[in-house]
Amino acid sequence: MSAASPPFITPEALLAHWQGHRRLTRRVISAFPDDKLFTFSVGGMRTFGALAMEMITMAVPMVRGAVSGEWNTSGSRDPRPKEEVLRLWDEGTAQLNALWPQIPVGRFLETLTAFGQYTDALHNLILYVIDNEIHHRGQGYVYLRALGIEPPAFYDRS
Amino acid sequence: MSAASPPFITPEALLAHWQGHRRLTRRVISAFPDDKLFTFSVGGMRTFGALAMEMITMAVPMVRGAVSGEWNTSGSRDPRPKEEVLRLWDEGTAQLNALWPQIPVGRFLETLTAFGQYTDALHNLILYVIDNEIHHRGQGYVYLRALGIEPPAFYDRS
Repeated sequence: MSAASPPFITPEALLAHWQGHRRLTRRVISAFPDDKLFTFSVGGMRTFGALAMEMITMAVPMVRGAVSGEWNTSGSRDPRPKEEVLRLWDEGTAQLNALWPQIPVGRFLETLTAFGQYTDALHNLILYVIDNEIHHRGQGYVYLRALGIEPPAFYDRS
Repeated sequence: MSAASPPFITPEALLAHWQGHRRLTRRVISAFPDDKLFTFSVGGMRTFGALAMEMITMAVPMVRGAVSGEWNTSGSRDPRPKEEVLRLWDEGTAQLNALWPQIPVGRFLETLTAFGQYTDALHNLILYVIDNEIHHRGQGYVYLRALGIEPPAFYDRS
């Protein structure tokens, strides 16, 4: 790193930012009635349960791959009770905290091929996972409003 | 920067990432029929036109404030023709490219108070603006689907 190229954000701060988003996404999952999570959607789109399972099967596998070079996307996206989705979510949160510090120094700026097909700088691959979570969570806000349920505040990441 | 604290991403790469998102958001604005942009929504939420105007009144003012310390949120969010929204969008895109390199070295890691009320590290303040764009654009995808219009591909940032 030269003095002319300071960071936008450090790895530690980016993980804290992501975990703030994950706390909000967890609240959005929680806000769905159990019988709507895998049944309700708008405009023929996927259910929020299906989107949450997509997030779960992307987050830890991406970071584990960044650590180990092994890219596994195992994990079913099938419907299941909300409590089970939340349990998997919390498992992922703990795994991210454990895996993140194991990403080798400097790797975020390197170009990798994730899951055998997505080639980009690691920071872009990880931002894609976070952005995908924000994008689909935004859809979840519309589903909740359409169900007459007030979504959690977007700015609250506590 | 010590060797133990390498960047997650550099300022230049973060701007490129943001501008990729902005190209996608522009396509989402474009995809709305002119007579729906400020009239249609789902679940009593704001229209996508109102959300796009919010994005416009956040992006450049945040970066200009980061450069100058002057926090102005002027700019009306009133309804207007789609072509006018797109013109303002493109103006903002050029202004961001011009302002970004003027942000002083190291400032992204400093804590600022934006618009007299939001105190956080500058990287978090800027990520909030980007995340807000992604969040509301996700809502726009639902509106388009509800209108029977296929949204642009999320992964295409070209």
